[in-house]
Amino acid sequence: MVNANEPRTRGRPRRTETDEQIVRATQELIREHGPESVNVAAVSSRSGVARTTIYRRYQDRQALLSAALQSVADRGAPPEGLSVHDKVTWVLARTEDVLGQGIGPGGVASVIANTDPEFSSALRLSLENGLEPLLEQIASDVAAGELVADADPDLLLNLMIGSYLAESLRRGTPGMQWRKQTATLLTRLMAASG
Amino acid sequence: MVNANEPRTRGRPRRTETDEQIVRATQELIREHGPESVNVAAVSSRSGVARTTIYRRYQDRQALLSAALQSVADRGAPPEGLSVHDKVTWVLARTEDVLGQGIGPGGVASVIANTDPEFSSALRLSLENGLEPLLEQIASDVAAGELVADADPDLLLNLMIGSYLAESLRRGTPGMQWRKQTATLLTRLMAASG
Repeated sequence: MVNANEPRTRGRPRRTETDEQIVRATQELIREHGPESVNVAAVSSRSGVARTTIYRRYQDRQALLSAALQSVADRGAPPEGLSVHDKVTWVLARTEDVLGQGIGPGGVASVIANTDPEFSSALRLSLENGLEPLLEQIASDVAAGELVADADPDLLLNLMIGSYLAESLRRGTPGMQWRKQTATLLTRLMAASG
Repeated sequence: MVNANEPRTRGRPRRTETDEQIVRATQELIREHGPESVNVAAVSSRSGVARTTIYRRYQDRQALLSAALQSVADRGAPPEGLSVHDKVTWVLARTEDVLGQGIGPGGVASVIANTDPEFSSALRLSLENGLEPLLEQIASDVAAGELVADADPDLLLNLMIGSYLAESLRRGTPGMQWRKQTATLLTRLMAASG
């Protein structure tokens, strides 16, 4: 257990390790009890890191939320050489990872209802940053004539993320079957026709 | 103000009027304070209808939620003779009506996070019933060769509802510009190609 009051002689814990504990505790709180449950006291008690240490590293709650969300949406782009179908499947799987596990339904719900504006803006920023490599990939697939001509990458991405959200709203967490059928349909619609 | 204790001699209020007051109060509570705020006491105090009257008409909270949601998602299908573009625009506008105003972001959030299982199941039932005419219309447009062949109407509908949800998550309530661009893209993708 890392503790900021540890005597210096025993050596300060590496910064990264303490940060990881803080970030992990914040992420767990978001997933398990929703973003409203995040504050320095709660993160301290869950991580075992002293409040003063947390304050020294994160100037306020907003900074803590941003740090916790920074890596959550950061999934890069699909590996090179995949077919359109496999890229779409990759995006749907990452959507499930990010929204279903990373942020969790409670986090998604909080942003849609905007019950915690600090969390909404931290999450939106991290989503836009995290989605950037994927949007570039989609734009280059449009330019290469692999995807439908002149389509706005941002709106194409909404179709993939949105299909997951619509199914979650209508029937609960989407299953394997849903992902397969949706990937097939989206591929037919979005791939540039011969 | 309707009151169940009114003397009979003044004439009982018509059933429909009292029901309307109960349903409207329940809908307002859902929109303004989320579904968790709905219970017979709160509906009674907001509507001015006595608790005993409410209990006589709705056997429990679930029945009250179902009644309040019954009409919310009931938007029928687009008028005959519209182009694919105008039908898509119609669906996007109804999605905004139903999710943005009717149920409200708080209601949508509650179902996604399943914070109130009674509400989730009442909403899902009302959505599926309300969407039936629209799904039939989509199926018949697929069969008529107006929309892309062999597509599952249910998944096509997810694209339209989902685009709205993804944009709400990423940037907040979608604007007019978003609706226009999304309608144009979805029309290109979903209309049967010449």
